[in-house]
Amino acid sequence: MFCEIVAGRSPASVPFEDELVVCVMDVHPVNPGHLLVIPKRHVTGLDGLGEETGAQLFRIGMRMQRAIRASGLPCEGINFLLADGESAGQDVSHVHLHVVPRLSSDRFRISSAITRPTRDELDRAAAAIRAAC
Amino acid sequence: MFCEIVAGRSPASVPFEDELVVCVMDVHPVNPGHLLVIPKRHVTGLDGLGEETGAQLFRIGMRMQRAIRASGLPCEGINFLLADGESAGQDVSHVHLHVVPRLSSDRFRISSAITRPTRDELDRAAAAIRAAC
Repeated sequence: MFCEIVAGRSPASVPFEDELVVCVMDVHPVNPGHLLVIPKRHVTGLDGLGEETGAQLFRIGMRMQRAIRASGLPCEGINFLLADGESAGQDVSHVHLHVVPRLSSDRFRISSAITRPTRDELDRAAAAIRAAC
Repeated sequence: MFCEIVAGRSPASVPFEDELVVCVMDVHPVNPGHLLVIPKRHVTGLDGLGEETGAQLFRIGMRMQRAIRASGLPCEGINFLLADGESAGQDVSHVHLHVVPRLSSDRFRISSAITRPTRDELDRAAAAIRAAC
């Protein structure tokens, strides 16, 4: 789907592109200005994305949020969101970073159960991750 | 709050740090392994974060998600999430990127109203952002 956009075979509204990434307006935006930063080379998830392409995704996300704020579109805050894997809510199997302008009046919600692990539990999780770095 | 951690004056469970960033386990994790990637230099929001520090935030986020998956902690997917501004749900006024291991059984939810703008509306948003780049 995104490859069709990169190839120019699918319609898209494109505020920015460079050699590595293309930005397209999300067709179901949380608010006007909601866009996706997409690597041009097809890659399903974070594991296949090189670190430098990932770094560029974030750099361009930063530039886009600045441009959204300067554009005159309503914007009180910004969320960056990336979903990797179906269990994380990934809907298109091509990596993409959401840049979402937020309004206190919008209906975008992020919620979770509150957990309160002990310091010992947190230290053990940190140790497991450190050992796997 | 995060500056106290960087300075070693507050307890934290740290799986990784380098010159620019420190990773700490979230004290209210969505799931075990949920961590934050934080720039060591105090900066409230994306606008004050240099592009290269932002790029490093994402690079280290990518390394951390790989380490979480390799650590043995349960992980079926990953979300990256960053909130900039109170309207976006920012809770600590020091930039931080959430790296969230996901399970299909967990209670983390992201929801929004469905919108269906016309192609003309999307093109106008893209043009406004392009003009502000």
